[in-house]
Amino acid sequence: MRGIAKAAGVDSALVHHYFGTKEQVFEAAITQSFAPAIEAPKAIEEGPLDGVGERLVRFFFGIWENPATRAPLLAIVRSAVTNETAAAVFRRIIATQVLRRIAVRLDLPDAELRAELAAAQLVGTAMLRYVIKVEPLASADPEQIVARLAPVVQGHLTGP
Amino acid sequence: MRGIAKAAGVDSALVHHYFGTKEQVFEAAITQSFAPAIEAPKAIEEGPLDGVGERLVRFFFGIWENPATRAPLLAIVRSAVTNETAAAVFRRIIATQVLRRIAVRLDLPDAELRAELAAAQLVGTAMLRYVIKVEPLASADPEQIVARLAPVVQGHLTGP
Repeated sequence: MRGIAKAAGVDSALVHHYFGTKEQVFEAAITQSFAPAIEAPKAIEEGPLDGVGERLVRFFFGIWENPATRAPLLAIVRSAVTNETAAAVFRRIIATQVLRRIAVRLDLPDAELRAELAAAQLVGTAMLRYVIKVEPLASADPEQIVARLAPVVQGHLTGP
Repeated sequence: MRGIAKAAGVDSALVHHYFGTKEQVFEAAITQSFAPAIEAPKAIEEGPLDGVGERLVRFFFGIWENPATRAPLLAIVRSAVTNETAAAVFRRIIATQVLRRIAVRLDLPDAELRAELAAAQLVGTAMLRYVIKVEPLASADPEQIVARLAPVVQGHLTGP
């Protein structure tokens, strides 16, 4: 909190006044950084369900391939993995703003679990491609990845 | 390096003598922590290819469900995500000790990319279940996860 106040050139009481507790500061920062990803359910809501896998994969890699939106996502991943407060905030945002909307659209038993396993495929691919940078995945053509992952994500969301 | 030497009650020159550079110390620590996971290719090598998805998923969750093997894996994930030296070491171990063996067994074009996308599904599931702890995935019965992920991993490794 003191570091944020110092960087902003204000007293730390002012940060407390506007953002509240440390957890609330985290929430504001994560909500801001996560803003592009919050639009993910739109990829599911807009268009027919049988193209949802490809739309979601394209949306996801669109955000990650763009350095401007990738940097804040990397910061979220790093803080969520190493800090329990950040993980709790991230968990709540995912549950209330992403999963619920996807579950409503899918209208299937286990809709939230399906959405999470689809997300796991995408999150894991981002980890290996952009964070750990394992080859050949790190240098693979995005279209090749989209072609392989679209049916997998589709299967998670609408398969048997 | 000084911290390790202090914790071990020795001079830091001794740590340098036995382990070399900071990167080599990381490599020794990661190799040790990653030892259970290094056996993953065995799940692929032992038994018929058409059961490989389920064997690999069971092997993976066997390690992650056991607190004794989960803790060092969590430590690797945290250091690889936040530290470039650790990521480089982890990347090299994955490439030389895991992916090459899997690729030899698969004997398919894009075998390494297939193995990495299968790994991405598993790594992402571990991230959401054990690190971020998103529900309902975090509390789901492991058998339910195995049932959903086995065909996905199988598809990555041997599908069209």
